[in-house]
Amino acid sequence: MPIPAPNLNPAFNIVRLSHVEFGVTDLAASRKFYTEILGLQVTDEDQDTIYLRAMEERGHHCLVLKKKPEAGIDYLSYKVWSEEELDKAEAFFKAKGHKTEWVERAYQGRTLRSQDCFGAPMEFYYKMDRLEPIHQKYELYRGVKPLRIDHFNCFAPNVDQAVEFYGELGFRVTEYTEDEETGHLWAAWAHRKGGVHDIAFTNGTGPRLHHTAFWVPTPLNIIDLLDLMATTGYVSNIERGPGRHGISNAFFLYILDPDGHRIEIYCSDYQTVDPDLEPIKWDLKDPQRQTLWGAAAPRSWFEHGSVFTGVDTREAELKATPIIAP
Amino acid sequence: MPIPAPNLNPAFNIVRLSHVEFGVTDLAASRKFYTEILGLQVTDEDQDTIYLRAMEERGHHCLVLKKKPEAGIDYLSYKVWSEEELDKAEAFFKAKGHKTEWVERAYQGRTLRSQDCFGAPMEFYYKMDRLEPIHQKYELYRGVKPLRIDHFNCFAPNVDQAVEFYGELGFRVTEYTEDEETGHLWAAWAHRKGGVHDIAFTNGTGPRLHHTAFWVPTPLNIIDLLDLMATTGYVSNIERGPGRHGISNAFFLYILDPDGHRIEIYCSDYQTVDPDLEPIKWDLKDPQRQTLWGAAAPRSWFEHGSVFTGVDTREAELKATPIIAP
Amino acid sequence: MPIPAPNLNPAFNIVRLSHVEFGVTDLAASRKFYTEILGLQVTDEDQDTIYLRAMEERGHHCLVLKKKPEAGIDYLSYKVWSEEELDKAEAFFKAKGHKTEWVERAYQGRTLRSQDCFGAPMEFYYKMDRLEPIHQKYELYRGVKPLRIDHFNCFAPNVDQAVEFYGELGFRVTEYTEDEETGHLWAAWAHRKGGVHDIAFTNGTGPRLHHTAFWVPTPLNIIDLLDLMATTGYVSNIERGPGRHGISNAFFLYILDPDGHRIEIYCSDYQTVDPDLEPIKWDLKDPQRQTLWGAAAPRSWFEHGSVFTGVDTREAELKATPIIAP
Amino acid sequence: MPIPAPNLNPAFNIVRLSHVEFGVTDLAASRKFYTEILGLQVTDEDQDTIYLRAMEERGHHCLVLKKKPEAGIDYLSYKVWSEEELDKAEAFFKAKGHKTEWVERAYQGRTLRSQDCFGAPMEFYYKMDRLEPIHQKYELYRGVKPLRIDHFNCFAPNVDQAVEFYGELGFRVTEYTEDEETGHLWAAWAHRKGGVHDIAFTNGTGPRLHHTAFWVPTPLNIIDLLDLMATTGYVSNIERGPGRHGISNAFFLYILDPDGHRIEIYCSDYQTVDPDLEPIKWDLKDPQRQTLWGAAAPRSWFEHGSVFTGVDTREAELKATPIIAP
Ligand SMILES: [Ca+2]
Ligand SMILES: [Fe+2]
Ligand SMILES: [Fe+2]
Ligand SMILES: [Fe+2]
Ligand SMILES: [Fe+2]
Repeated sequence: MPIPAPNLNPAFNIVRLSHVEFGVTDLAASRKFYTEILGLQVTDEDQDTIYLRAMEERGHHCLVLKKKPEAGIDYLSYKVWSEEELDKAEAFFKAKGHKTEWVERAYQGRTLRSQDCFGAPMEFYYKMDRLEPIHQKYELYRGVKPLRIDHFNCFAPNVDQAVEFYGELGFRVTEYTEDEETGHLWAAWAHRKGGVHDIAFTNGTGPRLHHTAFWVPTPLNIIDLLDLMATTGYVSNIERGPGRHGISNAFFLYILDPDGHRIEIYCSDYQTVDPDLEPIKWDLKDPQRQTLWGAAAPRSWFEHGSVFTGVDTREAELKATPIIAP
Repeated sequence: MPIPAPNLNPAFNIVRLSHVEFGVTDLAASRKFYTEILGLQVTDEDQDTIYLRAMEERGHHCLVLKKKPEAGIDYLSYKVWSEEELDKAEAFFKAKGHKTEWVERAYQGRTLRSQDCFGAPMEFYYKMDRLEPIHQKYELYRGVKPLRIDHFNCFAPNVDQAVEFYGELGFRVTEYTEDEETGHLWAAWAHRKGGVHDIAFTNGTGPRLHHTAFWVPTPLNIIDLLDLMATTGYVSNIERGPGRHGISNAFFLYILDPDGHRIEIYCSDYQTVDPDLEPIKWDLKDPQRQTLWGAAAPRSWFEHGSVFTGVDTREAELKATPIIAP
Repeated sequence: MPIPAPNLNPAFNIVRLSHVEFGVTDLAASRKFYTEILGLQVTDEDQDTIYLRAMEERGHHCLVLKKKPEAGIDYLSYKVWSEEELDKAEAFFKAKGHKTEWVERAYQGRTLRSQDCFGAPMEFYYKMDRLEPIHQKYELYRGVKPLRIDHFNCFAPNVDQAVEFYGELGFRVTEYTEDEETGHLWAAWAHRKGGVHDIAFTNGTGPRLHHTAFWVPTPLNIIDLLDLMATTGYVSNIERGPGRHGISNAFFLYILDPDGHRIEIYCSDYQTVDPDLEPIKWDLKDPQRQTLWGAAAPRSWFEHGSVFTGVDTREAELKATPIIAP
Repeated sequence: MPIPAPNLNPAFNIVRLSHVEFGVTDLAASRKFYTEILGLQVTDEDQDTIYLRAMEERGHHCLVLKKKPEAGIDYLSYKVWSEEELDKAEAFFKAKGHKTEWVERAYQGRTLRSQDCFGAPMEFYYKMDRLEPIHQKYELYRGVKPLRIDHFNCFAPNVDQAVEFYGELGFRVTEYTEDEETGHLWAAWAHRKGGVHDIAFTNGTGPRLHHTAFWVPTPLNIIDLLDLMATTGYVSNIERGPGRHGISNAFFLYILDPDGHRIEIYCSDYQTVDPDLEPIKWDLKDPQRQTLWGAAAPRSWFEHGSVFTGVDTREAELKATPIIAP
C-alpha cells in the first residue's frame, strides 16, 4: 500500500506532541530515575503525582508520573493551535463515532479526551501553565541533560490503518518501512512539529506504547548517560544501544524505567517543514534500516511495550520477521 | 514599544527561509571557501553561477554564488506552503504598494519578487527541484559539516518597523532587545519554521545583510572549523567567536567569506512551535545579552554588512551603544 | 598467582611500543582501509610496502604494510632509550637463550630482533627517521583522525608466564583479571610509556596478535568512524562496539582490516607514571569487567587473532569461560 | 641561546609534578569554586586546610587550600621515583648551595624542601597516601570534570636561566619561543612525565606562578564550564579563552579563583616520551604562536600572577613585546 498523500489541511490543527502520563508502581523509584538519571526537572509533586519538564521546555510538564497499583500508560497528550481547535477536534472525533469527553487536568485549560483508531487514549489541550525559562540555568542540568520531549512510538496491530488515521489528523509521514512481499507497511514515522516525528508506529500487538523519546544535542550526552547508569546500579535498565538507525538517522539509546516503560534518548533529527518533503522508503529486509551500525536489537525490543490503561490489545495482522539479535 | 502580538493568520503562508544569492567577485575563491572550508555541496555550476546545498537539505540549493563586478546580496528567498500562496503574496505586496514581479529562477517554479519595508529584495516560490538525500553519505562531509541553512540577520534602520512588517507576514518574535531609555527595539529574532529564527534584525545602517547562518549539531563542529581555518590561510577570515550569546543561547562563530559576506555557524537552538510561546526580553545594557561568555565583539561586527544590490541604505534612527571590544 | 612487583630497573630501557608490520594480501585494499577509513598518513610506499604514521607522531612510521601471499604479523617493534640499550638487550636475550639477530629495517638505525617467551618476534631500535610535525595540519585529518599508536594486545597461552616475562622487561601491570577458582591470570595490561598499556595479554591460543590500538581523544571520533564505515561498504568490518570496558575504562571500537587484522580505536586512558601505582584487580566473573556497558562481545572477538609469520601456536592452558554474546 | 640538549641522566629522578598549596583568604569561597565549578573532590578538610584530588588521581591530593591572611603560593611539589632519590635530591641542592630542609606534610612520607634558581619553593616526596580509584564513579563528576593536574606555568625573570636549571633536573624542553633579535628565550615548555609539560616558563617579573593546569579530554568539558560559570555568578572569573595555542596545540581556558590564582583548563596534549624528540621552535613575532585562533590575550594575562609566599621577585631581564588585546 503506498503512503497516502499528506493531509495539509486537517480538520483541526495539532501543534505537537506534548506529554504523557505514566502509571508507576513505586513513585520514589521513578522519581529517582527520571530526575537523577534522565535529568528531568520536577515542576510540582504530591504524594501521588510528579510533574516533570525537560530543560528547554516552558510548558509546565512533558511527563506526569502517577502512583498506580499497576504500570500503564494513561494517555498521550497533544497541544493544539488555539482554543477553537479543541471544538473542531471534538466534532471530528464525534463524527468518527469515537467517544469524547472533557476532562480536568491540572495546570491545563480545557482538555478533550478521545481515542485513536485502535482505542488508545489521546488528549488535546491548548493552554498549559507556562514557566520561566531554565535552559540557561546550567547548574540545573543533570543526567542526560534532556532538552525536550521528542516523540512517541507505538506498537500498532495494523500500521497501514495507523498511517491513514493519523494522516487524516495531519501527521505527515517522513520515513517508512514496507514489507515488499505484501506491500503492507511495517513501520512509519510521522510529524506535526517539523522534525522527523511526533509519533511513530511499528507492527506488533497493540495498541501499546513502545517508547517515549527525549531529545539531546550530541552523542556525548548519551555516552555520559551510559557511564552514569552502568555505575549507579542501572546497567540492566540499558536495553539497546548506542547505535544509529538507518531510518531517521537517529543516534539512539533505549533504556527502561523501574516499571519497564521504555525511554529513548534521541540525537540527530532533521527539518521536515517543507510540505512537499518526500518520505523515505526502506525495505524491511534491509539490515541497515534498523541498524545503520551497532549491535542487533534484542528480542525484548521487538516484543515488550507498555499497555494503555484499560485498553485491550490485539495481535498484529502482518506477520513478518525483522532482524533480531540471536 | 512593546512587541506586537504574533499574527497567527498571515495573508499568506511562508514555510521558512530558503536561500540567498551572493554576488561574488572571484568565483573560484568563493567556491573554495564554501566547499572546502564551510563544506557545502555543489549541486550545479557553470562559468558564472554555483549552486550549493547543505548536508540534510533536499531542495536544490540554499546558496547561489553569482560572479559579479561588485559584491552584494541579490535577494533573500523564502519557500511558501503552496502555489496558491504565491498569488496571495502578490496581492499582499500590491496592496501595500510594493512593486512585484514574476522572475525566472533556475531549478524553481514560479517565483515572486518584491521588497520588504526597507526596500530589501524578497523572493517567494513554492516549488524547487528536489534532490536525493545525502545526509547519510558520510564520506561527503567536509569542513564544518553544515546540516542546513538556519537564518538571515539584517541591519535595519528601524527595528520596530521591521518587527511590525515581518510580524504582519507571520514571523513570530522569540527574543528581543529593548533600549530601556527610549522604549525602542534594538534587535529582534523572529521565526516561521519553529526554531529561534528565520530572520533577525539589528539596529544599524540598512537595509543590509549582517549574516547568513548555517546550523551544526555540536560546538565541536565549530572547533574543528577554527582549527582548519587557522591552518589553511583563513585565520583572518575569523571575525568573532567562539562564544555563546545570551540571546537565543547560540553557540556561535562568525567568519567572513572572500568578499566579506559574513557567515555564522550556529549551534544550539530550541523549539518554538507553540503559538503562545512568550518572547524573551533582554535589556540593551545587559552585557550577557550579547555575550553570555566569550570575548567582546569587535567593532567590525557592529558596523560591517553586505549591501543589497542596487538598494539604498539609510542610517539607523535609534542611537544607542552596545558593548564593543576596546 | 599474585601479580609480581614491578621491575623498576630492567636490564634495558624500553621507551614504548613503536610499530608493527602487517603481512597483507591486497596492498591496494589495505591502503584504502588505512588511509581513507582509519585516516593514517602515508610516509613512503613502493610496490610491496607502505609506511604509515598517525597525526601526532614524528617517527617515520607506526605501521608497515607488506604485500605477502598470506596475512600475518611479521614483528612488533619497540623503541629503546639509547643505542647502548640495544647492546644490553642483545645480552639479555642471549642470556635467556633466545635467538637474536641484527636486522636491516628501512628508516631505522641498528635493529635487534629476538622473541618473547612464546616465540613471538620482538624488534628493538633506538633511531628512526624523524619527520616534520603534522598535528596542526588540520586539512590532512581523515577518517577516525588517529593521533598515535597506543598498544598491542596478544593472545597468550599462559598469561602468568607473559606477565612474568614482560614484567622482567620492565612492563608494569596496571590492571588484570584473575580466575578466582585457579588463581591464574586471565588477562593483564602492562605499560612502559605511562598510560594504561603498551601491551596486553588475554588467555587464548597463542602467541597471536589480538589487536593493535590507535588513540583518539573523544568518543565522537569513533561515532564518526562508525557512520563512515556503515555507509562506505565497511559495515561488516565493524566487529564490536562502541562500548566501554570496565578494565582500563576504555571507550572502544574493534574493526577488522581487509585481511582480518583487528584494529582497536581507543579513547580514554589515564596516567600511570607513578612507580607505586597499584594495579586494579578484576574478577573474571564480573560482567562489567569486559563490558561496563554495551553489547556483549561476539564469539569471533574471543577466538579470532592474527598469527605471527612462521610462529607456531599452542592452546591456552587455562580453561575458563568469559561472557560471550549468545 | 640555543636550547641545551636534554639531560637524560639527571642527579635524581623526578617522576612528575604532583601538587601545589595555595594560600587563600576565604576558605569557603575557595571550596565552592574548586568543588562546584572546577569539580575537584575533597579528600580531607578541617578549619584551615582543604585537600582535593582530580577524578583519575589516586594520590591523596593535587591541590591544598590553606587559609591565610594573604593569598600566595606556598610551594610546588614533585613526586620522585623512590625514597633514595630524596637523598640524592638533598645532595644535589646542597651542592648548588640552595638551602634544604626536611618538612612535615600531611598524608606524605619524607618531604624535602628547597628552592629553584629564582628562590621559588620546590618540595619533593616519594610516598603519598593512595586512595581508591574514583574515575569510574561517574555520579561524582562535577563542573569541568577534571581528570588530573597537568602542569605549572611560572613567570621567570630569565627564561634561559630557568631552562638551564630545570634542564639539569631532567626537565626536557618540548616547545619554546625565541626572541629573534636577542637570541634569548621568551618562553619554554618542559616535561618529566611524557606530555608537553610539567612546567613552563614565561618571561616576566618573577618568580611567580602564572597558572596551574588541569587536564580534560575534550573541548566540550570547557564549553560546559563556560556555560556554568557564566550563569552562576562567575562570569568575571573567566579571563581568557576558549582558544587554541599554536604552542603545544592546547585548547585552553584561563579562569581566576576567588583570590586571583589562575587555573588553566587544558585539553589536547601529545606524547613526548621519545628521548630524541625535537623541541619545536616558535618565533616571538609569530601571532599564531600564542593564539592559533581565538581572541588576543588581555593585558592581565601577561602581567598578573601569584607570588610565592615570602619570596622576592625581580623584573624580567628581556624586554620584548608580545601581542596584547588592545
Ligand atoms: Ca563532543
Ligand atoms: Fe524513537
Ligand atoms: Fe545569527
Ligand atoms: Fe586494546
Ligand atoms: Fe598552561
